[in-house]
Amino acid sequence: MSEVYAARRTRLRDYCNAGGSAAALVSRPANVRYLAGAAPHGAVLLLGRTEEQDLLVRAGPTADRPTQERPDEALRVQTLPGAGGGDPAVAAAGIAASQGADSLAVEEHHLTVARHRALGSVAPRLRLAGLGSAVEQLRVVKDEEEISCLRIGAEIADQALGELLESILVGRTERHLALELERRLVDHGADGPAFPTSVATGPNAGRPGHRPTDRRVEEGDFLSVCLGATYRGYRCEIGRTFVIGTAPADWQIELYDLVFAAQRAGRESLVPGAACRDVDRAARQVLDSAGYTEGLTVLTGHGVGLEIDEDPQLSPAAMGKLDACVPVTVEPGVHLPGRGGVRIDDTLVVRPEADGGPELLTITTKELLAL
Amino acid sequence: MSEVYAARRTRLRDYCNAGGSAAALVSRPANVRYLAGAAPHGAVLLLGRTEEQDLLVRAGPTADRPTQERPDEALRVQTLPGAGGGDPAVAAAGIAASQGADSLAVEEHHLTVARHRALGSVAPRLRLAGLGSAVEQLRVVKDEEEISCLRIGAEIADQALGELLESILVGRTERHLALELERRLVDHGADGPAFPTSVATGPNAGRPGHRPTDRRVEEGDFLSVCLGATYRGYRCEIGRTFVIGTAPADWQIELYDLVFAAQRAGRESLVPGAACRDVDRAARQVLDSAGYTEGLTVLTGHGVGLEIDEDPQLSPAAMGKLDACVPVTVEPGVHLPGRGGVRIDDTLVVRPEADGGPELLTITTKELLAL
Repeated sequence: MSEVYAARRTRLRDYCNAGGSAAALVSRPANVRYLAGAAPHGAVLLLGRTEEQDLLVRAGPTADRPTQERPDEALRVQTLPGAGGGDPAVAAAGIAASQGADSLAVEEHHLTVARHRALGSVAPRLRLAGLGSAVEQLRVVKDEEEISCLRIGAEIADQALGELLESILVGRTERHLALELERRLVDHGADGPAFPTSVATGPNAGRPGHRPTDRRVEEGDFLSVCLGATYRGYRCEIGRTFVIGTAPADWQIELYDLVFAAQRAGRESLVPGAACRDVDRAARQVLDSAGYTEGLTVLTGHGVGLEIDEDPQLSPAAMGKLDACVPVTVEPGVHLPGRGGVRIDDTLVVRPEADGGPELLTITTKELLAL
Repeated sequence: MSEVYAARRTRLRDYCNAGGSAAALVSRPANVRYLAGAAPHGAVLLLGRTEEQDLLVRAGPTADRPTQERPDEALRVQTLPGAGGGDPAVAAAGIAASQGADSLAVEEHHLTVARHRALGSVAPRLRLAGLGSAVEQLRVVKDEEEISCLRIGAEIADQALGELLESILVGRTERHLALELERRLVDHGADGPAFPTSVATGPNAGRPGHRPTDRRVEEGDFLSVCLGATYRGYRCEIGRTFVIGTAPADWQIELYDLVFAAQRAGRESLVPGAACRDVDRAARQVLDSAGYTEGLTVLTGHGVGLEIDEDPQLSPAAMGKLDACVPVTVEPGVHLPGRGGVRIDDTLVVRPEADGGPELLTITTKELLAL
């Protein structure tokens, strides 16, 4: 694996050299992890002019939050001395200056104003430039190792969801179902949930990002569930909606079929080269044309990886196109205030048609199940 | 409750006026919640020159993460229009300028460089000043309503821990025990865990901030547990160490008694007016004088409230003194690499001696239990 991280750092170094910066400071944890193999609490990655200068700077050995991750063995690690040990970002700026760098590209979308000022104070001759979201952009296209982690995470989420569906649901609260799902994720080998598990019943069903309440599952409810596993740092997502009881009502079947059609349209438009906004439009126009224009979510889907919400964004205003090997969610939904609603959410990897088209990672059935 | 939030905003306004800033922008979520009663995702509080100008600015109605909290009803709320709706902090800066403010104090320890620049762009005539940690300092001394939330949270944590101790532990993994504790916290009415529950067995026991692994509890182990409940946003913490099996070994008893003595010394030094570093020293010197100088944590304890780790810090380098009605943890520990160790952690409220001295919120026994 070590070559993978070194190759990633080389790509970033090439980018920085092209932009005229001699060195870069990566502070956003997911970016540190991507380039260094691990992101101990507060650690930053200093990218020098050559690989030998690259350095992971981490807080003192007696810091209160040890990590069990191991950074790339080929990467030098400097642990700040003493209790507390100060801010690794500030120390890294001092090291960059002592290495002879005259400019340092920093993550202005992550560093606070106060930390940025402290960097400037410790190395006043170092020009602080902006790295932009260069590392986030490197992260968009995944290698097969990364996709393999997502695939395993998706299998774990499918298993946890499948087991829940075999249990009795009526009378149990949203909170309990969510906690049970999270326990099952861990049972099956997840590092933990990829995000707070959402379980929504009755009038809550279909609300995006709904936080579980003490409402109990009742006969006739829609039940929508959204969960994901983190596996070796990689986060996936699955969302399904079910009906509780012997037979769904007509309005439930109609709404479900509509959201299913929208989600399928989104999935089918996932091809390399497709504009992100076109994927969004494919799903959205199915809902629009049925009259559901209000209250739709901003996004139809988004990238996943070391974070649960990454680039690309699938939205009406999104710029850019999809590449092969980009994992995204497709998750349209409709929520009718007071009645509930439907969300269907899959994680897929964009693949060329020659390779069989989009690879569905979350394979739990999307038939409308009456539980 | 509304008067409480208005009074807090008035105190901050007085502070800003004294500092020469006409308006302030509060963006750190816990600070927004403290002043506005709720912190919807991404919302910021604009503090004007008069109470009538105060405004909670929140992201658009179709944002993906709805909140179930209700802000202070006396506070005006402005929801940004349209999907996405932009950055509430940037919108608030524009509003401040249109209200005639010539300077705006911002939280430089929370705003990123990129957001700060966007604020400057939208309102170029507005001088951006620093608010420092003014709101964090207001939050240090709690009112009885806040302490009551902490007290209920501590009761919940005590209950969850007590139930776990009645169950069979040998053979179960750290992860499962941690998940079960979190489920019990929610069962007893917590909003959720106050922080990731730590369960550590055998050689892991006593490691501060240990993340649960798949190691199973064995006879003869130390078992250390650290958990806390969030109740109405307020977070408490309790940590205990037990021995698994019929009788603890001599080294276990000795180590436990030592940490217990250190923790008691820390608790007993919690009086209004005590220097924070003296509380730390009281606990630390017990461990120091027994030869455990290496590997001690940076902090002996810390404040708790809307965040699990707030001011004051109880450490050798801490400045400042304790006031009455400040809730803090006292949590010394010793970890022996390869063997395990002991941590004992309580949440207490500093009270004058006339009121009975420090109020212990987490009342689970600190006798060494053999389970």
